[in-house]
Amino acid sequence: MENVKIAFFGLGNMGEPMALNLVDAGQEVRVYNRTPSKAARLVEKGARIARSPKEAVRDADIAITMLANDEAVRDILLAPAQPDGAAIDALPRGAIHMGTSTISVAFSKELEQEHSRRGQGYVASPVLGRPEAAAAKKLWVMAAGPGDQVERCRPVMEALGRGISVMGTQPWQANVTKIAANFMLLALLEAFGEAFALFRKSGMDPHALLEILNGLFNSPVYANYGRMIADRQFQPAGFRLKLGLKDAGLALAAAQDAAVPMPLASLVRDHYLSAIARGLEDADWSALAEVIAQNAGL
Amino acid sequence: MENVKIAFFGLGNMGEPMALNLVDAGQEVRVYNRTPSKAARLVEKGARIARSPKEAVRDADIAITMLANDEAVRDILLAPAQPDGAAIDALPRGAIHMGTSTISVAFSKELEQEHSRRGQGYVASPVLGRPEAAAAKKLWVMAAGPGDQVERCRPVMEALGRGISVMGTQPWQANVTKIAANFMLLALLEAFGEAFALFRKSGMDPHALLEILNGLFNSPVYANYGRMIADRQFQPAGFRLKLGLKDAGLALAAAQDAAVPMPLASLVRDHYLSAIARGLEDADWSALAEVIAQNAGL
Amino acid sequence: MENVKIAFFGLGNMGEPMALNLVDAGQEVRVYNRTPSKAARLVEKGARIARSPKEAVRDADIAITMLANDEAVRDILLAPAQPDGAAIDALPRGAIHMGTSTISVAFSKELEQEHSRRGQGYVASPVLGRPEAAAAKKLWVMAAGPGDQVERCRPVMEALGRGISVMGTQPWQANVTKIAANFMLLALLEAFGEAFALFRKSGMDPHALLEILNGLFNSPVYANYGRMIADRQFQPAGFRLKLGLKDAGLALAAAQDAAVPMPLASLVRDHYLSAIARGLEDADWSALAEVIAQNAGL
Amino acid sequence: MENVKIAFFGLGNMGEPMALNLVDAGQEVRVYNRTPSKAARLVEKGARIARSPKEAVRDADIAITMLANDEAVRDILLAPAQPDGAAIDALPRGAIHMGTSTISVAFSKELEQEHSRRGQGYVASPVLGRPEAAAAKKLWVMAAGPGDQVERCRPVMEALGRGISVMGTQPWQANVTKIAANFMLLALLEAFGEAFALFRKSGMDPHALLEILNGLFNSPVYANYGRMIADRQFQPAGFRLKLGLKDAGLALAAAQDAAVPMPLASLVRDHYLSAIARGLEDADWSALAEVIAQNAGL
Repeated sequence: MENVKIAFFGLGNMGEPMALNLVDAGQEVRVYNRTPSKAARLVEKGARIARSPKEAVRDADIAITMLANDEAVRDILLAPAQPDGAAIDALPRGAIHMGTSTISVAFSKELEQEHSRRGQGYVASPVLGRPEAAAAKKLWVMAAGPGDQVERCRPVMEALGRGISVMGTQPWQANVTKIAANFMLLALLEAFGEAFALFRKSGMDPHALLEILNGLFNSPVYANYGRMIADRQFQPAGFRLKLGLKDAGLALAAAQDAAVPMPLASLVRDHYLSAIARGLEDADWSALAEVIAQNAGL
Repeated sequence: MENVKIAFFGLGNMGEPMALNLVDAGQEVRVYNRTPSKAARLVEKGARIARSPKEAVRDADIAITMLANDEAVRDILLAPAQPDGAAIDALPRGAIHMGTSTISVAFSKELEQEHSRRGQGYVASPVLGRPEAAAAKKLWVMAAGPGDQVERCRPVMEALGRGISVMGTQPWQANVTKIAANFMLLALLEAFGEAFALFRKSGMDPHALLEILNGLFNSPVYANYGRMIADRQFQPAGFRLKLGLKDAGLALAAAQDAAVPMPLASLVRDHYLSAIARGLEDADWSALAEVIAQNAGL
Repeated sequence: MENVKIAFFGLGNMGEPMALNLVDAGQEVRVYNRTPSKAARLVEKGARIARSPKEAVRDADIAITMLANDEAVRDILLAPAQPDGAAIDALPRGAIHMGTSTISVAFSKELEQEHSRRGQGYVASPVLGRPEAAAAKKLWVMAAGPGDQVERCRPVMEALGRGISVMGTQPWQANVTKIAANFMLLALLEAFGEAFALFRKSGMDPHALLEILNGLFNSPVYANYGRMIADRQFQPAGFRLKLGLKDAGLALAAAQDAAVPMPLASLVRDHYLSAIARGLEDADWSALAEVIAQNAGL
Repeated sequence: MENVKIAFFGLGNMGEPMALNLVDAGQEVRVYNRTPSKAARLVEKGARIARSPKEAVRDADIAITMLANDEAVRDILLAPAQPDGAAIDALPRGAIHMGTSTISVAFSKELEQEHSRRGQGYVASPVLGRPEAAAAKKLWVMAAGPGDQVERCRPVMEALGRGISVMGTQPWQANVTKIAANFMLLALLEAFGEAFALFRKSGMDPHALLEILNGLFNSPVYANYGRMIADRQFQPAGFRLKLGLKDAGLALAAAQDAAVPMPLASLVRDHYLSAIARGLEDADWSALAEVIAQNAGL
């Protein structure tokens, strides 16, 4: 991988291991984070710190965002409220924004236009995988954008994960893919929640059902989430419940724009709202099942 | 496997290969079917035909039912309308009814009582697997009943499948397990339907999403149903749509008795009703996804 | 009203005032009730007590049922377990069964056949109104059955209510009407529940919203149920919650037979199941709203 | 009513008759509309036309908005893209924005802040009633805002409607009230849709059910919408279907902010999306029932 200058935003439990992998791959990484102390390990490994988003992107070939949601990306890149102006205006012509955050289809389209009229590239490249996978370079990258831009980002993607699927030439195509994949996970959590509630209320052990389901589906995802839910082990949160609500909302927003009813997404959204109303906001998103159990009087 | 005399009811696309496997295993099998011609292959292999349910069970050690639903089992075993009386009264004391059909929890409890007060055994042993698996002896058997009865049936179960899970000592425990497992399949069909509708309406190819999901879930069930739905290949029906409606109904009935809301099961039920109202009754149950697509104007 | 001999079954909070009105109207009323003490007031006014359902109907011109559900009607009329045989066999040819209970469409069709092949008449005549309306002869009767039979029952209906709507010549047509009307009430309870939960969670007083809704809808039903729910006054139960669950189930059963999705009925059913799981079984059916409030963390 | 200078925005089928009533009441009305020809009748009666939003509000005591949604209000008042700058900056200190549009709770809170820091007043005053009611001065106004501001707007409200309910001192309180009231109407449309689908699919005439419901609820709203739906008369649209979708969305947004599940609102939203996907976008919002009928194969 030829040397590229990377600006990196978002040092949460996904972003930090991703940025570390880029440093390990020998890239020149400049990070900006609201809480500079979060960059300590990165700096130790050789990353540099920028004092503002604008400074971070000034010389970058590629700017990577791994932030919580639309608002966080907007704040970092587009907001004129930054001390020295909107960062997007400082990103060089010809540089590429590689957006790995899970954001809305509508905002991805907006970003595409903003970058395009500044002569910058934009490749959406959300990733599948939990923090452990990020650390182990085992993420799966769904990429979309103009072919040449995707190719320029490919070495960076390869440093982050175990594989890349190119979803199309328009960035939002990667975002809708990520949204649909996360929806499939939400649907599974809902299904586990209902099946286990029926089982428990019938006086039976959900682990016994899980064993059958593992035989039937033979999927590590079923084994993993099934065990968490059967054990009712929702702390610590690998992926926080309110991010599950966000994902359900992203699916519903994309669906509304496309005039597609997604009643199962609405169902999940309502259960997450109930979870938040009952104080489960910081539990793992699989605690969706706990709300379903409570609704059954468990 | 010591020699046992088996009465077998239900020569549909699951029952026929199951009965053939029992004949192949050297058992003495007597079949009864409303349409005797359906027994032709079995007779060729050595099975005998009974002219009535009562005649079929008269000397049986084990009576196996593989029928469509509660009503069909009730008609064969309990109905006094049979030419020579209710078959259950002809089943010898000490013989066992091995119920492999997918029936309701409530009816399973009723059967347990009916057999019990006649000194007969009853082991619920519904199976997981489609017709191909039945033919290949690859079914998975979920068994429940008194320990000694389950043991007596074990050789028969081994002749039918690749594994057995004992779910408890009360027969209905196997039934609720089967109902919960089928519900998990229904939930997956619904999820595929919604995700693919969003994808198609966004102008994208559902096969591209399926590839991502196969990477994520790594499950043969996802690969198989995902492909059927992405291809919109709902004929011929491996498992008919109206049986999907029946399964959703079984989950809802068990859930109502246990006071458990299962809104996802209701959602599936409604989509199946819509499918039937639109003439999809004889399609494969995965055509659930087609209704969801139609609701999105596809 | 010419003198008719009436057998009356069901002395609950609806049936007792109805039977009293018939006695007041000068009819010869013979009642049967499992708990004979419930007939005390009726006997005082001149009604006679029968010791069995069969005895009650033996000389009757019209047999009226006002029982809780299908099972209760089946037990009284069709069950052979009665001390002296099934009551339906004792009802004279030419006599009419006037069924005022809220029963399923399917069972109403079954009753029509059972009476028909015994040369008896059957008029379904469910009523709208709560116990106060029954006492005040202000029920509204929805009647269906062969024209001449409906006419013969008309004087009796007039003694019970303030009006009669003839829904058709097939008895089940009155039952599906009653089921649809009750569904509209259930839908209103659900709507109140959700709107008030939003209002309360926003820190506002639901009574203020109710005032607006009273201005908008100008309906006594809204005023009445709206006040109960805004006051959270669910005891004593005018109409018990588990009867609400029954009504939702009747709508869903009729809808399934007609292949009609009724997702709002499923929603109500699930909330009632949750109510029962949380111990609200004996509250008024408007306590549906309480479950919705709890789901919002209230 | 003392003479006040009014700026009026939004001459749709609600806004035009409202503005005419203000002119009739002797007020000095200045209107701005993107399509100036829509102001013809108003000008004839004595209103004046402004060439920009800014010009319209420059001397106003009260600026009234009756626009389609959040975006339309934002465009008129806050957008800097207007030829001569954002109109809100031209509204005099001490003047009041009287917002009669149905907008979101979140945007109402934003407007309150924007006006407040410019020393302007803001009274939310959404109205209940269809265009005929607007013309006949029979709207019902739900008002909220600081007491003195509400009082200053009262004469204007009195010129528009038959009554005023003050919902609180914070403007958003009127908006959440309007949203909840519209939700109750949406719930009714859904309920009619399902009940009539069941009725029609059972081979019966929905008008016969409507007669019963009119007796039961005794509400002009039931009579009116029930007739439209039973007649399947959805054109011309008194209130367009896509505004129904907007209203469901406003309820869901307010509910999400308050962590309140509103599954019935989700149900309505999904049916509206399906309606739009099937080309019913410009029908009356009561055509929600048509989607439900189609889902039942009608």
